[in-house]
Amino acid sequence: MTEPTDQNPGADQRITISVDAMGGDLGPAAVVAGIAICAQQNPDVQFLVFGPEAELDSLVSRRKLTRCCTIRNVTEVVRMDDKPSHVMRHGKGTSMWAAVEAVKSGEAQAVISCGNTGALMAVSMLRLRKLPGVDRPAIACLWPSQNPGGFNVMLDVGADIRADAKDLLQYALMGGSYARNGLGVERPRIGLLNVGTEENKGRPEIREAHDLITAAASDASFDYVGFVEGGDIPSKRVDVIVTDGFSGNVALKTGEGTALLIRNFLRQAFRATPLSRIAALLAVTSLRRLSRRIDPRRVNGGVFLGLNGTVVKSHGSADATGMSSALQLAIRLAESGFNERLAARVASFDLGGQDAESETAEAADTEQAP
Amino acid sequence: MTEPTDQNPGADQRITISVDAMGGDLGPAAVVAGIAICAQQNPDVQFLVFGPEAELDSLVSRRKLTRCCTIRNVTEVVRMDDKPSHVMRHGKGTSMWAAVEAVKSGEAQAVISCGNTGALMAVSMLRLRKLPGVDRPAIACLWPSQNPGGFNVMLDVGADIRADAKDLLQYALMGGSYARNGLGVERPRIGLLNVGTEENKGRPEIREAHDLITAAASDASFDYVGFVEGGDIPSKRVDVIVTDGFSGNVALKTGEGTALLIRNFLRQAFRATPLSRIAALLAVTSLRRLSRRIDPRRVNGGVFLGLNGTVVKSHGSADATGMSSALQLAIRLAESGFNERLAARVASFDLGGQDAESETAEAADTEQAP
Repeated sequence: MTEPTDQNPGADQRITISVDAMGGDLGPAAVVAGIAICAQQNPDVQFLVFGPEAELDSLVSRRKLTRCCTIRNVTEVVRMDDKPSHVMRHGKGTSMWAAVEAVKSGEAQAVISCGNTGALMAVSMLRLRKLPGVDRPAIACLWPSQNPGGFNVMLDVGADIRADAKDLLQYALMGGSYARNGLGVERPRIGLLNVGTEENKGRPEIREAHDLITAAASDASFDYVGFVEGGDIPSKRVDVIVTDGFSGNVALKTGEGTALLIRNFLRQAFRATPLSRIAALLAVTSLRRLSRRIDPRRVNGGVFLGLNGTVVKSHGSADATGMSSALQLAIRLAESGFNERLAARVASFDLGGQDAESETAEAADTEQAP
Repeated sequence: MTEPTDQNPGADQRITISVDAMGGDLGPAAVVAGIAICAQQNPDVQFLVFGPEAELDSLVSRRKLTRCCTIRNVTEVVRMDDKPSHVMRHGKGTSMWAAVEAVKSGEAQAVISCGNTGALMAVSMLRLRKLPGVDRPAIACLWPSQNPGGFNVMLDVGADIRADAKDLLQYALMGGSYARNGLGVERPRIGLLNVGTEENKGRPEIREAHDLITAAASDASFDYVGFVEGGDIPSKRVDVIVTDGFSGNVALKTGEGTALLIRNFLRQAFRATPLSRIAALLAVTSLRRLSRRIDPRRVNGGVFLGLNGTVVKSHGSADATGMSSALQLAIRLAESGFNERLAARVASFDLGGQDAESETAEAADTEQAP
């Protein structure tokens, strides 16, 4: 039911991941270091790496990755302050554009970039196009949670600051599909983010979405738990949290900021007295385990949902660990044939036509979150 | 410049706090226990306690508080699921209504309740009225932060899910005044919550508010730091974070949820091995200090800003510790004559007329967060 593309790998076909090596805060060295970690765990995966050949050549050979990496020479780079509209018009020669193009052409099954989010979404929409039936693609993130799998899914966390009721229903369908295929949750429980759990709470579009998702739940093999609040995002009550890109972005960054604050407080607490310093030594492995559980680098990787192709956005500041965990996510999604399943799921709900025509390059500048 | 009320205490006048003893999850026992803690630290403060006389009498005498507490017999109670519109029409005989009335009449300088937030805001707006120049009152909360004072202020966290550019400017003025008088920050740094720090980011009303606050900053004795993101809420970059009630409520509850999650992870980490259990014993005082720093009970107390009177909303689930910290906040604000200063600050900015006429009881039901 999706547009024909060449990107569906057979079960026995080797996975190829397209990697934009440029645009991250730490430069291509961190990206290649991430590939090195990931390649050890996935010896059969190939990487198509886009960026300036000379620089990449030396990084790749130094890490002995020539066997699994193919370098594609691209000299231009999308900068963090480039406007999405500018990149859409003039970005053809950039590593980001070329990396996305590799998914479009079917050379790779997923693309990953740690560059400018707005530009990556704009280029992905332009080259891969939206899935039939999807009005607004969304960015989904993973959130450390008390659920057995360790993560919940939240979307949209910043693809578009607006979302109407129909968009929120699509986010529910797409988020459910992602939780099923990416996280292995058989029957995801979906909640709609609001400022209270009573039915009369929230903006009109949220109350309308509540009715739409309630109606869709029986056919869509997910359970709708109704309205949830910010405190429920990491809870056992839900697997998927649906919200607009503004609230989702605020929640995501607030959660990260709170975790960072507590980390600092914890460090201070353990330095406070000689006894607590000894305690820190004794508890070092337990504390490391804790630190890993709340380390934003380990949940790195926002996934763009609603496009004809899998696009993973890594944090701009991702180091080798962060990059490798985002690559791992891209591989898992490519292996599961996730995007084809998602397309089928969305297509099975007739939500009326797309408003693709209304998009302009100008709109992209103001609508997309960082 | 404010409407004449009798609520301005002279510096030598005794502070009286009006307390709604009912409507909290733990009932009047927790409220009276909170008064007991607070009364020890504030021997000169009087409490007017509203609720069923027989029950309160026995609680107050058991805690030997008869000297500082005056009980006012009120038998009806606002329940958590009562609609604000219903309470506005039929709530006259409730402890919440009577407690607010004591500020209106000048008997008390501040009122505190742990009941239904929407109803408390509705009754407060009805009886105390909005300050001249204020269109939408806001709820401000304290947020543990890396600043020397230990707290940042955020508003609105749920009085109204909508806010236009002018409302956001008023929140900046009111939040600045609160930080100055409530927290002792001489020249507060104010930030506007958005999904990015670039000027072209966010919804139109946020970009418009950005211009209004920039223009107001020089006259208003605060510094405007521009757009901030969720991760900045607990940071040293700002003292006051301005946002609409929907995003503010989501951020507040997400922060609380994240802190709770990490607390649970930390507890698990310290139970993981025999060595970590010994470490926990050695570090017990340091860990308690950490726990206190991120304990939501210690930052208990949302303040309603923009009314002719000081109203403090305590968490519905507040225990004695939480209640006492909210009471402490009410006393600090009453002592500083905060509300009169706030009124003067808002009045000094001519923002055009109020739209008080457009309010209806129906609107209150859907607009107010829990």
